[in-house]
Amino acid sequence: MYHPKSVSTLIGELVKLPGVGQKTAERLAFFILKASKNEAEKLARAILDVKGTIRQCSICNSIADSDPCEICGNPKRDKTTLCVIEEPHDLFAIEKTGGYRGYYHVLMGVLSPLDGVGPDDLSIDGLVNRIEKDGIKEVIIATNPNMEGDATAMYISNLIKPLEVKVTRIARGLPMGGDLEYADEVTLMKSFEGRMEI
Amino acid sequence: MYHPKSVSTLIGELVKLPGVGQKTAERLAFFILKASKNEAEKLARAILDVKGTIRQCSICNSIADSDPCEICGNPKRDKTTLCVIEEPHDLFAIEKTGGYRGYYHVLMGVLSPLDGVGPDDLSIDGLVNRIEKDGIKEVIIATNPNMEGDATAMYISNLIKPLEVKVTRIARGLPMGGDLEYADEVTLMKSFEGRMEI
Repeated sequence: MYHPKSVSTLIGELVKLPGVGQKTAERLAFFILKASKNEAEKLARAILDVKGTIRQCSICNSIADSDPCEICGNPKRDKTTLCVIEEPHDLFAIEKTGGYRGYYHVLMGVLSPLDGVGPDDLSIDGLVNRIEKDGIKEVIIATNPNMEGDATAMYISNLIKPLEVKVTRIARGLPMGGDLEYADEVTLMKSFEGRMEI
Repeated sequence: MYHPKSVSTLIGELVKLPGVGQKTAERLAFFILKASKNEAEKLARAILDVKGTIRQCSICNSIADSDPCEICGNPKRDKTTLCVIEEPHDLFAIEKTGGYRGYYHVLMGVLSPLDGVGPDDLSIDGLVNRIEKDGIKEVIIATNPNMEGDATAMYISNLIKPLEVKVTRIARGLPMGGDLEYADEVTLMKSFEGRMEI
C-alpha cells in the first residue's frame, strides 16, 4: 500500500485536472486532508454548484447564471458591434479590460481540421442569423492570434462580408512592456504592418 | 461583472490550494465547467470522502482508513526498528521505495522556534513511550535534511539515547544521477563525511 484508498481516489481525480501531475495531485490531496472539514466542504460545494447553476446563454453561447446572460440582457451596450470569440473565458478576459461595450458571440471552438473540427461544429449559423436580424454594423473577430484562429477568422470573414457588414480583426503587435530585441520576427512584422498614425 | 457568481466562488476556493494562483484557478474552474457533470461530482465526492473516512492512527499518528493503520496492524514487519518522520506523506514516500520493513512514528511537524513550534507540539512523548514499551532496538530519524529537520533529529537523539537504543540519521550525499560539478558544497562535504567502504 502507498496511500489509504480514499486518498488514492482523490489523487486519481485531481490528476485529471489540466496541469496537475502526480506530485501536484499528492500535494493538493494532502493539503485538503489537512484543511478543516468546513474548507473541504466549501470546495466540494463550489464544484457542484458551478455544474448545477451555470447555463449557456441562448443568444451568445457564453456561460452565465441566467439566460440570456448579463451582457445579452443589458440594453445599454452598443447594439451595432459584435465581437466573435472562441470560448467563454475569452469574453471574461475582454470584459476585464473594460474597453469594449458591444455584444459577444462565442463560437464554442475554432476550425481545426487536424482535430476534426469543421464549420458545422461551431456556432456559425447563429452568428449569421444575428448579423442579419440585429442590424450589426461591425463584427470584430477576436479569435486567438494563431494558425487555427487566423483560419477561422478568414473563413468567417469570407462568409459574412456579403452581408454588408464591416469585418475587423484584433491587432497583432508587440505586447505592452515588450522589447523589440526579443520579439519574434512574425510579431515584429505584424507590428509594422499594423502601424498607426500618431 | 467578470465571471458568473458560482464561477467566481469556485475560483475563490481553488485559489486557496497550494501553488494555485488566479490564472491557474481560472483554468481549473473552466475545465470543471467543461467536464461532464459526472466527472465534477466524482471530484467533489472524493474531496468529501477523504475528509469523512480518513482517521489518524493512534499508534503512529499517520493517516489511514483504519485505526490502527495498515502498517501498525501488520505483525510481519520488523518490530525492532522505528522510523521517525515529520509528516504522514513522508511515510508514503518511504513505503514507495519498498526497502524499509520496520514501523513508523509521525511527529506531526518539526521543531521550528520561528513558527512557535516547540517539543510539546510534536508527538515526542508518544515516541518515548513506544521505545520503552515495544523493545525497539534502532530508531532511524528521517526528518528532512534541512535546519529544522536536523535540529529536531538532534533534540530527539539527545532525549532517547539514555533509553539504550541505537539512534541513526538517514544519509546525506549526492542524489542518484547527480553531478559532482553542480552539487552544492554542503551536500558534497556530507557525501565525503558519509563515505562507505565498497
